[in-house]
This record gives sequence, C-alpha cells and structure tokens, in this order.
Amino acid sequence: MAKEEKIFRPAARLPKGFRDWPGAHVRARQGMLARLRQRFELYGFEPLETSALEYADALGKFLPDQDRPNEGVFSFQDDDEQWLALRYDLTAPLARFVAEHYDALAKPFRRYQTGPVWRNEKPGPGRFREFVQFDADTVGTASLAADAELCMMAAEALEALGLKRGEFAVRVNNRKILDGVLETAGVDAADTRRHLTILRAIDKFDRLGSDGVAQLLGKGRKDESGDWTKGAELAPAQIEPILGYVTAAAGDFAAWRRAVGASATGLAGVAELEEMAALFKAAGFGADRIQFDPSVVRGLEYYTGPVFEAALTFPVTNEKGEVVQFGSVAGGGRYDGLVKRLKGIDVPATGISIGVDRLLAGLSARNAEAPETFDGPVVVLVLEQAQVASSQAMVQALRAADIRAEMYLGSSGLRAQMKYADKRRAPVVVIEGEDERAKGEVTLKDLALGSKLSAEIESAEEWRKGQPAQVSVPRTKLVEAVRDILARGRR
Amino acid sequence: MAKEEKIFRPAARLPKGFRDWPGAHVRARQGMLARLRQRFELYGFEPLETSALEYADALGKFLPDQDRPNEGVFSFQDDDEQWLALRYDLTAPLARFVAEHYDALAKPFRRYQTGPVWRNEKPGPGRFREFVQFDADTVGTASLAADAELCMMAAEALEALGLKRGEFAVRVNNRKILDGVLETAGVDAADTRRHLTILRAIDKFDRLGSDGVAQLLGKGRKDESGDWTKGAELAPAQIEPILGYVTAAAGDFAAWRRAVGASATGLAGVAELEEMAALFKAAGFGADRIQFDPSVVRGLEYYTGPVFEAALTFPVTNEKGEVVQFGSVAGGGRYDGLVKRLKGIDVPATGISIGVDRLLAGLSARNAEAPETFDGPVVVLVLEQAQVASSQAMVQALRAADIRAEMYLGSSGLRAQMKYADKRRAPVVVIEGEDERAKGEVTLKDLALGSKLSAEIESAEEWRKGQPAQVSVPRTKLVEAVRDILARGRR
Repeated sequence: MAKEEKIFRPAARLPKGFRDWPGAHVRARQGMLARLRQRFELYGFEPLETSALEYADALGKFLPDQDRPNEGVFSFQDDDEQWLALRYDLTAPLARFVAEHYDALAKPFRRYQTGPVWRNEKPGPGRFREFVQFDADTVGTASLAADAELCMMAAEALEALGLKRGEFAVRVNNRKILDGVLETAGVDAADTRRHLTILRAIDKFDRLGSDGVAQLLGKGRKDESGDWTKGAELAPAQIEPILGYVTAAAGDFAAWRRAVGASATGLAGVAELEEMAALFKAAGFGADRIQFDPSVVRGLEYYTGPVFEAALTFPVTNEKGEVVQFGSVAGGGRYDGLVKRLKGIDVPATGISIGVDRLLAGLSARNAEAPETFDGPVVVLVLEQAQVASSQAMVQALRAADIRAEMYLGSSGLRAQMKYADKRRAPVVVIEGEDERAKGEVTLKDLALGSKLSAEIESAEEWRKGQPAQVSVPRTKLVEAVRDILARGRR
Repeated sequence: MAKEEKIFRPAARLPKGFRDWPGAHVRARQGMLARLRQRFELYGFEPLETSALEYADALGKFLPDQDRPNEGVFSFQDDDEQWLALRYDLTAPLARFVAEHYDALAKPFRRYQTGPVWRNEKPGPGRFREFVQFDADTVGTASLAADAELCMMAAEALEALGLKRGEFAVRVNNRKILDGVLETAGVDAADTRRHLTILRAIDKFDRLGSDGVAQLLGKGRKDESGDWTKGAELAPAQIEPILGYVTAAAGDFAAWRRAVGASATGLAGVAELEEMAALFKAAGFGADRIQFDPSVVRGLEYYTGPVFEAALTFPVTNEKGEVVQFGSVAGGGRYDGLVKRLKGIDVPATGISIGVDRLLAGLSARNAEAPETFDGPVVVLVLEQAQVASSQAMVQALRAADIRAEMYLGSSGLRAQMKYADKRRAPVVVIEGEDERAKGEVTLKDLALGSKLSAEIESAEEWRKGQPAQVSVPRTKLVEAVRDILARGRR
C-alpha cells in the first residue's frame, strides 16, 4: 500500500473559467445553432470556419478591456519563435481571412461563423475563459443597408428561437453621434483613452442611471463594494450636454441633432440612423423589435459607425437577489478600419456577434421549469450474461426501427440496472428473464408511467407481480410494442 | 507616401498546418456530423462537450508518436504557473471528466463528443496541427459487447453516409493476441519501447508488405527517400513467427491460436475475438462489414484489448500517382488504464474516434465530380441607390417565404452585380429597373438556365432584349414566380 501511494496521481479538475457541457445543454445548443444557421443562410450568409490558432500579429488585440495589461489573449511561441494566439473573437480572424483572400472573394463578402473563442482573463462569476460565439459579417460595403440587415436578422433570429415581441429588443446607436456629442462638449478627440472612458461610462447608464454616469464622467465613482473607478475628469459644463444626450428619448432624432450641435460627424451619424430607420420601416420592423437608444455604446474601440446590440428584456433575478432585465446577448457594429490594418486599402465592414451560451442561458431562464422528461434511450436489461447476444439482437432491431436503444453493458443485477435506466431517463425498459424466454416473450416497463415504483423493486419475483406500467408481449412484437408505449408518452 | 510605408502591416497568413474551411466544406461537414450524431444517439450515446484547454498533467500525454520529444502538445503556463495544454484528442479529456464526476455518472457511461483537437507537430502533406474528431466511448464496463457495439455502430455510420458494402471495412484485432505472439517469440514484455517499435512495424504491413515489415522487425529499413528507420533488432527466429501471424488469413482463429502458442494472454485475446464474432453474428453483421485482421495494431500505447479501425477500401490516386486504398478514417480500442491514472480505481473503457475531415475527404474522393450547382441565395440587384428600401422589401418578402435571398450591398453597376450573382452561385437574379418600376413589374433571370450568357451582358438595354432564361412578372407575384423557377431547377 505504501508503494501504491507513491504513484503520482494528477488531480482530475478543469482550470477555473472553463466548463464542461452535459448532454442536455449540448443538445439545446445544437438545436439553437441549427435555427440560427437556418436564419443566417436565409439572409444569404455563407458559413466559414477558420482555425483556433493564428499568428498573434495577424490577429492584433482588439478586446473590450484592452486597457488591462497582460490580459486578454492566450499566446505562446511556436518552434520558429513566432507568436501564436488562440482567437479571442471571430472578427479578427475574419479580417485576416479577407485580407489573405481578398481578390478571390465575391464582394461584398457575407459570412457567418460559429465556434469557441478564448480570453485570458481572470475568471469570475459569469466571466469565462472559453465561450461560443455566432457571428455574421458583411465585408466590403459601406452601405447602411448591410448594418440594417444585421439588426433585422438578429430580431428574426430571436423570434425563430421562440421569443415573443416585447421579450427582446435590438437597440441601435451610432458612434459618430457619440463622437459629435463629445466634440460639442469640448472633449479632445485625440485623447482616445479618455474617449473610451467616457463611452464606457455611458454604456453603464442602464445599470447606474444618470447619477452614476455623471460620477464616472467626473472624478470617479465608488461602488457598493468600496472599489473606486477613476472617472473621465470632465468639467461639469462638459458633463451636462453628454447627460442630456444619454437621457434623450429613444429615437428622438431631433433631440439627438440638438445634442451634437454643429459637429459634422455627429450630424452625419444622425443622418445614418435616419437612413436605417427608413429601411426598417420599409421591411416592416417597428419599435416593438428595433429601437434607437442613445445609451448603446459597445465596448470595442474599433467601431466607426452604427453600433447595435440585442437584449433580452424580460426580468430575471440576479445573484444579488435583485430583479433585473436579462440584458445583452449580442452586439455588433460597423468597423471600417480592421481589414485596412492588414490589407492597406479601405475595406468597410459591419458585423454582429451572438453570445451563444449566454443566449441559451437567457432562453432557459425564460422557459418555465421543464417537466420530468424520459428522453433517454430504451434500455434492454441483461439478466444472464450468457444471453448477451439475444439482448444485442433486440437493441439492433429497435435501432433499425429508428428507436434510440441500448443494452445494459455493466455487470450489476436487476435493481442496479433499473436504477441505471432511471438515471438514463429511459422511457422503456425491456426485460427478458428465464420465464419470459421460455414463453418466447419479453416484458416491457413504461418508466414514464411507473417511474416512482422502480426504486422499490427488490427482486425479479416482485417485478413480475402485475403492475399497471408493465406489459408482456411476444418477442416478435417487441418493436411494435415499444413504439406504442413511446407514442403514448408523446400524447 | 514614404510616411505610409512606415506603418507596420502584419502579413495576413495562417500558420503552417492550419486551415480555413470554405462554405461548401462547412456545409458538407455539418450534414455529415448531423448524420453521425443521429446514429450515435440511436445507440444511446449522450453528447458531452469539454473545454479545449485543460491542465497538462490531467491530460497526460498519450500520443501516437510519443517517442518524439518536444513534439505533440501545445502547452503554456497560466498566470499561476500551472501548465495548460490544448487537448490533443477527446479521450484524455473524457478520462479527466469521468474521474472528476465519477460518482454522479450513470455507469456504464456512454458519451459522444465532436470538436477540434490540436497537435504540436511538424506540419507536412496530410499532417495538420488542427483537425476535427468525432468520438464515442463507453466507460465503466469490461463487457466485450461494448467493443462489439462500437464496431457495429461505425459500420452503420458509414452506411448512413452513403457508403455501400464493399466500399468500407471495420477491421478488428486484439492487443492481447499481439502480446501473446511476442511472448511466444521471446520478446521481453518489460521492454515497452521495443514492443511499440514492433507494433508499429506490423501496422505498416498494408503499405510495406512482408519484406518491409521483416526489415523493420530486424535491423531497420531505408525508404525510397533514403531515410533510415531503425528496426526492433529481433533475431530471425523471432521475426518468423511474428510474420507468420501477420500474414495469417483474416479471421482464421485456429491459425491465430497456433501463433500465440502457450501464451495465456494470447489465448485470452483469441477467445475475446471469438466472443465478439458471436455478437456480430447475432446482430447480423457479416464479413462484408466487419473483419478480423491480424495487421490491425493502432498506434496508441494505452490499448489493452480489442483494437479496431474503419477503412475506406475503394481506390484513390495518392500524391505519388499510385493507386491505393483510401485507408483508415477511424480507429479505437479498449483502454482499461486511462481513468485509473487519475482515479486510482479500475475503470475499464473502450472507444472509437472518427477523423472527420479525413472521412469527408474520403467521401468526396468517392463521389463523382459534382455538377455545377446554383445553391447560393436569390440575389436582388440594386440599380438605383435611391431604391434600396424597395429592394430590401423584396428580399424580406422572399425570406419570409423561406427562400434564401439577399440584396446586392455593394456600389458597382449592373455588370459587376451580375458577376457577383454568378460568383455567389445564385439560382435567380431579381431586377427592378426604372422601366420595370413604371410598369409595377420585376424581371427575373434564371441563372441555372442562362448562366453562360451573363458574362456577355454589357448594358441594361441589351439585358432587356428577350432571353429565354428571363421573365417579367408583376411585382406582387415575385415570391410565386421565384418559387416556380427554383422548383424548375430542382427537377
């Protein structure tokens, strides 16, 4: 024994910030991705898959929290000393792909992609280091119809997932308007750092309200935990017009026009949104699906025009016990400079990214507790090891009839096998004991009907006492009888 | 200009060994994965997704080419100095998952998983650093029915993908028989390195024949390129019985029994295969789908019992111009020690892994050159930018009728728009010019009928000259008319 203990045994555990996904989640996600794919295909987007690893310099580093040094990207040196990085989103690899294959592509290039991305961040509640995104982008056009289409597609995709109008909102704004407001407020446009601090303050309007945003635009703000967030240090005369804009009514373009004052950039931004509004109207999308919202900012530095997000608006209870809107599940916008970085020519582009696992969490938060399901396979028990081939033939017959089925493959007795079937959420258990075999019969137990009794079964004897959820049929009628029970469960 | 040139511009390129997958491949893969999932679900396997990154020590390093140092795994240190690694297969993460959640799992635990894996290897022809696997494993049972089932499922999965009997073979062997043959040949069982060299020599029987294998069992072998592979340095008297076994007829269990001589391990191995043969027979799987083959070895060190592979047997021409069998697309076997490494208790297990991209390559090698397809979206042209909203309304109407459609979003003229539609493989192009608008009509061009003419179109005038593949319909009949043309293309 002492010798045994000296064997090095690594601990079986996942690093923090990473997750395993069990069957129910994987199936739900597969179903959701299939619906999203179908919708995106309907809009003419083509699938693309790029690799998980890229050269770090080709990806660049365009992260929401770029201001935190040493964080963001998982990277390491290849054998030839070049730096490789795990993609942190699906946009940077798209820019690389477009720049690399520019001449061969049909332009505008419309593609969708789904897959995991990785962030080398300190993990925390709701903050993971691996998560799945679903992106659609149109590259190579300055047309605002491309941006408008992404917003409409996002709304339709959410409806295709079963959400009703009023349970979600696609919210649209324009970075040029924000720039115009800041210009009019006298904020130096060259000070990109302060610019970003201001945008992030506005982004928190939903959560912190006017007072909180005002603090973050000024000296700074102490949150409930006592942490101090340094502010943008604007003067009160600068803060006022910004707040005026942020609190303007949704879609009140006249008020927005006043807020940008004489700024040409700002006025261009308002005109762009008016153009998008006309497209939404022509396509039948009203304020019950798409809204213009001054507080939408999106954290990414590279956005240059329209920005948008999709949010679930129904209430959920957060970890602090507060009732809040579920919030953003997708975001995007126009980024005209990203391909230029690699290609050297102007390649205007716009895109949207759905947070797949977050959207899935939103959908399950919305749906009432699901009733107990028996969505596992039919389980064929094996009471005598010598009869394995017979059980095997039964499962094959069931599978040939497109019925999900498996034979119990362990070495335990009847009781443990019944527990196994329960745990597997089997709808039906098939039993061929000695008696049944002599009569050429099999016994079927309907677990959806009789699941509560199964834990109490002690012996094959007791089992054979007539139970309502149990039936014996000729072995030749196995498939038919199982199909009947499954059909009963579906009613 | 000189200033422009000083801007650092990273090259847009992928690291060697990595690939981008275009739309047609992604769609074909999605279809294939859906069929595989359906088949695996039918067999009672549950989906699982584990993360791409794991602690390196929890994964261990069980690679086919473990003997090459510094190669194999992409790994790097986390902020807390612990080593993280990208998974190099889906089996090691499964072992970690089972060890971590052992008590909560219904055992035997049957799961399938698909996703990319990464190998830090020198890339070369056909050797990639990222590829997709599709695995199924049954963990927690020593029953050979579990192994037999994986072989049957592999055969059925290949049939579900459209392969006919005779175009594929699932080949089965047993590591215990190989061990028995070596024991009888007097090879020291403790010399695991030599053991592995011998197994890899046998594995090359298909490709090198008896003479090549004999060289690799002896001093070594020089290949066509002049590279020397060191052999296992066995004596001729040791080589002979091994060759005798490898060249024995498929499924000749009597000959195999002779080859293992008095080795208890070897005899147990033959008995196991006989047990599997009985299960195959009971389930209706004959030698047209599953064969017992002495040359099947599988490169992995951790296999402890039955090993199996699925191969495509139809001929293809390789890069050297030789006609060869397409070869292996899946492999697996019993690995009873992998979970024990982490958990400390015996957890017998067996699994199979399909090389998804390789299987997809096999299927397209088999299928004749596909005819030109028009599987893109319907493209609605935009001849006047002022009419964007009108075109937008048309695409939305088409999409609402479940017809894949998009509006041209670029800024080019008619000719470029037609080229774009060609490149997108659009089945139908919708045109609403000034004249059409005046009449309340739209013009539809059937590209499947008239694609050859499109490159010659010079002007809107020429376009309007009657062409057989072109029709004008009232705008209110747009959806109906497009649907008619699409239905025509499907006949």
